[in-house]
Amino acid sequence: MDYTVETATEAVLASFRDTKDERLRQVLQSLTRHLHAFVRDIEPTIEEWGAAIGFLTAVGQKCDDTRQEFVLLSDVLGASMLVETLNGAKDGTESTVRGPFHMTASPRRDLGDSIDLLGTGRPCVVSGRVLTPDGTPLPGAELDVWQCNEKGFYDVQQPDVQPPGNGRGRFRTDDEGRYWFCTVVPSHYPIPTDGPVGALLKATVRHPYRPAHIHFIVSAEGQRPVTTHVFVADSPYIGSDAVFAVKSGLITDFAESHDEQAAQRFGVTVPFTHAKFDIVLAPETAR
Amino acid sequence: MDYTVETATEAVLASFRDTKDERLRQVLQSLTRHLHAFVRDIEPTIEEWGAAIGFLTAVGQKCDDTRQEFVLLSDVLGASMLVETLNGAKDGTESTVRGPFHMTASPRRDLGDSIDLLGTGRPCVVSGRVLTPDGTPLPGAELDVWQCNEKGFYDVQQPDVQPPGNGRGRFRTDDEGRYWFCTVVPSHYPIPTDGPVGALLKATVRHPYRPAHIHFIVSAEGQRPVTTHVFVADSPYIGSDAVFAVKSGLITDFAESHDEQAAQRFGVTVPFTHAKFDIVLAPETAR
Repeated sequence: MDYTVETATEAVLASFRDTKDERLRQVLQSLTRHLHAFVRDIEPTIEEWGAAIGFLTAVGQKCDDTRQEFVLLSDVLGASMLVETLNGAKDGTESTVRGPFHMTASPRRDLGDSIDLLGTGRPCVVSGRVLTPDGTPLPGAELDVWQCNEKGFYDVQQPDVQPPGNGRGRFRTDDEGRYWFCTVVPSHYPIPTDGPVGALLKATVRHPYRPAHIHFIVSAEGQRPVTTHVFVADSPYIGSDAVFAVKSGLITDFAESHDEQAAQRFGVTVPFTHAKFDIVLAPETAR
Repeated sequence: MDYTVETATEAVLASFRDTKDERLRQVLQSLTRHLHAFVRDIEPTIEEWGAAIGFLTAVGQKCDDTRQEFVLLSDVLGASMLVETLNGAKDGTESTVRGPFHMTASPRRDLGDSIDLLGTGRPCVVSGRVLTPDGTPLPGAELDVWQCNEKGFYDVQQPDVQPPGNGRGRFRTDDEGRYWFCTVVPSHYPIPTDGPVGALLKATVRHPYRPAHIHFIVSAEGQRPVTTHVFVADSPYIGSDAVFAVKSGLITDFAESHDEQAAQRFGVTVPFTHAKFDIVLAPETAR
């Protein structure tokens, strides 16, 4: 039977029928349906389809050890955030995108350590607790934290700036489920624009900026891990994140504190900038 | 407004609203709708989405000057053929995929020249006419022809085999719209399987073979060009092309001929293998 506009999709669906991994078959058959529907919808010319192939090739070739352009593409199309949102636990802290900069292992640090190894930004303390949905503290919970510096650059974007590992740390909560660390207030920043995704944003008159935030991956035994951000409340672009990752429940004040007792506990002096952010982890079985 | 499963697609669609190029806006908004529908349909885990990103990255990184893995991916998903079919002219010779091997300019040759520079295969003559839909011959029509050798390899896949340009040629029809050239009968062959697309075929228990064929791009002033194949009638895999490109109207006998007059015109001796293939080009304005 000839491959016609009418029979095309069924022919490709049938070609996957012997796939042994049932999930793989389901994914590829769904991909075929949606990809063919897209092609039928836009009816690309041969030249347009060639341009699409060229774009995807350039996206792949822009990737290296410190750059993941396909994650950026997924991000600016809102797909990463949709995947995160579909996977988020209902009664835990809301999740958001992991982004392309979690590519090197964060160094293990002690509670109260600073992840700011440069000393050039506005110092602040981030503190909070890791809790179950009913408010029970989770001792020994792990927090993997990473952020850009006050100029908007992650360490991997500035390999010449020493020491390495700036803005990254892994912490464990104490016996009361508490965590705290020192850092600098992160800056808003543009996602990398020197690749094909940057060209796409330019061609569509979209700005490349993300509002200021600190990344967290938080996990504890028996609980569902969460990948999320703390957003700086008064940051530019808080209402128009290039990757659609802002959720109002994650926006946090980075406020001046005169709390002497807290300052003493954190090993700083008043006044200090303080962001308080509790993280709730749903049980492992939750969806 | 938060980015939720309910609001996600509208938020991304809105982000493209200021795109000045109307076609680009239409394509990206359609892509967003279909991509999000795919994600909602399969509800990928974070790990699965990461694996998809990794696959696409590997496809891009497999591409180089002589390898186009994204074209292969588009081919095995039937998308290339769907695009070709949507673009085909109704009253001309049916189109089929260009494939990934039209990557070097074919050398200009005279009618009757051989595109077989190796002399190791079964010789044959391919001849025919280029015509309008009402049968009027088209003198000066251009045919860009390329094929693999009798072992199933294109010249670009064997850069060490000299001379270069084997299996390729550009011809012009004579005053009566006729063309003819000598070559060898091409072999069926596997598409390249040493990359991510090969791994995909293996995981889905799909064979990688294409039935034997010769590629043509045929153009003439005032007519719509056509990209097509002549398929060898008795080739293995003629009923299960890995890239869905077979159309019954393109299947041609490569038969033994004892026609003395034809042999004399082509500069060969009887018996010879002869494939006859006329190409009809629709007017430029046809759709």
